[in-house]
Amino acid sequence: MPWDDTVFVSAHGRGLKGAVDRIVANDKAAVLTDEKNTPAAIAAELIDRGRDGYTAYLCENLGSAEERIRNTDVAGLLEIKAAPLNVLILIKEYEAGGDEYVPTLGIPDEEFATIKKLITKEEVRVVTLAKLKLRHDMCLWDIGAGSGSVSIEADHLLPNGRIYAVERNEQCLGFIKENLNKFNTRNVTLVASEAPEGLEDLPDPDRVFIGGSGGNLFDILEVIDARLPADGRVVINAITLETLTAATEYFDNAGYNVEVTTINIARTRPLTEYKMFEAYNPVYIIVGVKE
Amino acid sequence: MPWDDTVFVSAHGRGLKGAVDRIVANDKAAVLTDEKNTPAAIAAELIDRGRDGYTAYLCENLGSAEERIRNTDVAGLLEIKAAPLNVLILIKEYEAGGDEYVPTLGIPDEEFATIKKLITKEEVRVVTLAKLKLRHDMCLWDIGAGSGSVSIEADHLLPNGRIYAVERNEQCLGFIKENLNKFNTRNVTLVASEAPEGLEDLPDPDRVFIGGSGGNLFDILEVIDARLPADGRVVINAITLETLTAATEYFDNAGYNVEVTTINIARTRPLTEYKMFEAYNPVYIIVGVKE
Amino acid sequence: MPWDDTVFVSAHGRGLKGAVDRIVANDKAAVLTDEKNTPAAIAAELIDRGRDGYTAYLCENLGSAEERIRNTDVAGLLEIKAAPLNVLILIKEYEAGGDEYVPTLGIPDEEFATIKKLITKEEVRVVTLAKLKLRHDMCLWDIGAGSGSVSIEADHLLPNGRIYAVERNEQCLGFIKENLNKFNTRNVTLVASEAPEGLEDLPDPDRVFIGGSGGNLFDILEVIDARLPADGRVVINAITLETLTAATEYFDNAGYNVEVTTINIARTRPLTEYKMFEAYNPVYIIVGVKE
Amino acid sequence: MPWDDTVFVSAHGRGLKGAVDRIVANDKAAVLTDEKNTPAAIAAELIDRGRDGYTAYLCENLGSAEERIRNTDVAGLLEIKAAPLNVLILIKEYEAGGDEYVPTLGIPDEEFATIKKLITKEEVRVVTLAKLKLRHDMCLWDIGAGSGSVSIEADHLLPNGRIYAVERNEQCLGFIKENLNKFNTRNVTLVASEAPEGLEDLPDPDRVFIGGSGGNLFDILEVIDARLPADGRVVINAITLETLTAATEYFDNAGYNVEVTTINIARTRPLTEYKMFEAYNPVYIIVGVKE
Repeated sequence: MPWDDTVFVSAHGRGLKGAVDRIVANDKAAVLTDEKNTPAAIAAELIDRGRDGYTAYLCENLGSAEERIRNTDVAGLLEIKAAPLNVLILIKEYEAGGDEYVPTLGIPDEEFATIKKLITKEEVRVVTLAKLKLRHDMCLWDIGAGSGSVSIEADHLLPNGRIYAVERNEQCLGFIKENLNKFNTRNVTLVASEAPEGLEDLPDPDRVFIGGSGGNLFDILEVIDARLPADGRVVINAITLETLTAATEYFDNAGYNVEVTTINIARTRPLTEYKMFEAYNPVYIIVGVKE
Repeated sequence: MPWDDTVFVSAHGRGLKGAVDRIVANDKAAVLTDEKNTPAAIAAELIDRGRDGYTAYLCENLGSAEERIRNTDVAGLLEIKAAPLNVLILIKEYEAGGDEYVPTLGIPDEEFATIKKLITKEEVRVVTLAKLKLRHDMCLWDIGAGSGSVSIEADHLLPNGRIYAVERNEQCLGFIKENLNKFNTRNVTLVASEAPEGLEDLPDPDRVFIGGSGGNLFDILEVIDARLPADGRVVINAITLETLTAATEYFDNAGYNVEVTTINIARTRPLTEYKMFEAYNPVYIIVGVKE
Repeated sequence: MPWDDTVFVSAHGRGLKGAVDRIVANDKAAVLTDEKNTPAAIAAELIDRGRDGYTAYLCENLGSAEERIRNTDVAGLLEIKAAPLNVLILIKEYEAGGDEYVPTLGIPDEEFATIKKLITKEEVRVVTLAKLKLRHDMCLWDIGAGSGSVSIEADHLLPNGRIYAVERNEQCLGFIKENLNKFNTRNVTLVASEAPEGLEDLPDPDRVFIGGSGGNLFDILEVIDARLPADGRVVINAITLETLTAATEYFDNAGYNVEVTTINIARTRPLTEYKMFEAYNPVYIIVGVKE
Repeated sequence: MPWDDTVFVSAHGRGLKGAVDRIVANDKAAVLTDEKNTPAAIAAELIDRGRDGYTAYLCENLGSAEERIRNTDVAGLLEIKAAPLNVLILIKEYEAGGDEYVPTLGIPDEEFATIKKLITKEEVRVVTLAKLKLRHDMCLWDIGAGSGSVSIEADHLLPNGRIYAVERNEQCLGFIKENLNKFNTRNVTLVASEAPEGLEDLPDPDRVFIGGSGGNLFDILEVIDARLPADGRVVINAITLETLTAATEYFDNAGYNVEVTTINIARTRPLTEYKMFEAYNPVYIIVGVKE
């Protein structure tokens, strides 16, 4: 079995939660455990998250006379009192059906807990992500996160980045929590706040997505402009003429390069007798790039 | 500096080319070199590819009395005759401009060598990828690969997968080679052949994308159908009514679930005096899921 | 007052109903009455239709010694026992508001009695009419007439033509009657029948519009093909992939020239706080021209 | 032969040009000639316009002992010295092909002399006309008339109205003249001028269409606003974000009701091997209704 697509995880360095975040986001992990974050503690956390589909190899005292390798599953680890110095190898098991996995891009809308009409639709979501031009280690602000779907998909694209999902609506906050948990995001932090107020304490962004501005678009853009570096990008999804106008005028006045993309999508539904095309409302994706 | 977002690369295991593929696809790599694949050999390959923007730490004889760590750059490695047992740490340097990186999704069309009219446009490309519902370790056939843009973006989404880009046109083959090289894809294999003939020797696919069928759509779908597992997906981009009709009829007859998405996109160009909306021709993305 | 934009109407030739049809479709009419179709009878019919907004000049015994011209309104005509030989001049009065008139093209959707989702929307309707390439004196079959909106707008464009609105659904038939009456169409005949059965007794068409085929598209097209002259046109509005496919395949096989136009429309609503773009489902307008 | 779809034309009242305008716009005309505007003079004008496809009946001295009816064609009329009191009946002849007629709506783009890219496309043109909500006797200003296509189609919808096609570009003026002549418009007056300057001498409009504003949109709208009655309508076709924004902001500030419709159209071409969908650039149709 090839070892170099294995991720190495230091339970000591990351703590229990951080270590498990990283484990579940990969297929093969070699975990350095310690006296506190034992194999059994890690197993308990995995079971707690409903993510126990792993084959486990517990390698104790490697390189010494007491070297011992045991093959078990996650539940089996609960029973084991491991030696203090050990490496826990976890290898994800995939089941036949194949329907339970999360794709690396294009999570279906219906997988998200959400107010149905408010979600950024799958197709628009991925175009939005493409327009953000993310790099693996960037800091992204997701303002008006709604159901968190953009943050959640961005999480795959920012393996070493940080994402801040800012949302003020109570119901949406509940949905985001549910979704972050369901999809085991690694790098998303939920910020329960109005914008621009909640932005103050965040690290400076490389990228900003505004899915909703709650009537504060101008103020939000002012705060962003003060914190965004040169070549930083702001992407705004508009469904009203007012937002389209306000956003492009702001960017024009602030000297940003502006591109507007309109997307009209219609799709048939599977499993219906006739394939009728149903339209989404059009979305304007406005990109402002700071000079 | 955190060590657990470092990839571990065995030059011995992968060979020189494979090791460098993996190095350039990441930001931080710890490379186990050997007597043949020395630090200097790796440095030469990096320079050859025009990818020498790394800070290097050469760690020799770790844990022994002869332990030595040297800090240099890629060119500096050429001069060094390293100890046989060493680890080479390479850390990518990003420059101020930020314009030279490849985003993790949404490579701009103009970055590809291509016949301009034939490229699957950025926005359509990412929706296509979303429709493919890729998982990190899948096998993807990209039939009628054109400029290779779909394969190249899929490469990021299939870190442990295999992609076969099948193309028969000489000019396109040249473009694909140029693009695969430019974007340092890791998992894409170019298959210079007509389809369905060229498909015979490939491993069975989990996913298939057909961007062009050269008049052989029915035969290609027959071959795919024989090799695709249940829940496998075929995605076809159609720009003519004939392809739309032929594809949906095939899937209907073969008992696949079918969904058709039409995408109408228009965009303004940056840096023009007026923001005029220019339309792309509409594309029909047909998804067939095998029951 | 210029007399040559006056229409001349022979009540004797057309009968009472036909004469009033022609009166209400114009702004200025000179009506030759007779002993049966008297000015009072015409006035009664106008009042009955709720169309009494005319200034009337009753000109009796013109050119003779008994010549007499009386100026009154429609209600006033009821009281008058006119001489047998007379010309009745009727001049329409428009009121200030301007909102009650029917435009010569583009009747708003909400003016039609209809099942809301089923109406051919204003914008699609006029493009459909444009694709029909009507000439003033043609014979048009409107199959699956729905609310009759296409027939009603075509009526303006076929001042000397004949239109047959074919519909089988009871509820729709009620709507069509209501709408034909409301808009005072002149040349539309309602055919309460399934197609193709109901087409048998109609005069051969120059143009055919199919808004709905009730699952009989192939049979309907066969009947049309047998009766349509060379250069005749069939226009089909499709909202499902099945209809799009079936229609274009029929035309291709039958040797027609085929053009398909897709229309994606979104519009803001007036009088809302924000101008949100709302999409209509896309429509495919398929034109087949017989060679 | 039914007589009451005949138009009556007084050559004496309208003059030679006006009379012939009305003749060519109809299928059946009864013309009262006079000593100056003789049947031969009318025939000469028809031939001059290349519109000699009529059967002619010259009815001299009707009702008198010298009554005489002669059946001839247009060329034949040149030879005849008619009695001073006569009625000339002209009945249009249609040829088999059917391709040479002008439809009552939806003139194909390629029928207009124009700069190809600048014409308001057939489909957009008819939706624009629908949005204008024309009544037969209105006054329409067509500002930035381009090739005159909107004015020419409106001419059919405004049989008793007046249309002013305002254009400043020399090349366009040439195209408009050519097109007005080709399509024998009756009610269109060409105004060779910049707007808003050229608007001063025109009668107040009921409707205004702005297809181009040459950078003077605000000034043009100010002039229109001063002259447009309540319930008057202004329709603007925008292809840039700047025009869309400027127009809606003007209307919002001036208290108009505003509706914006976006149209995305794609069509296949007839007579090609494959039916490929080709997109038009999207157009925004902005309607402002004065309260």
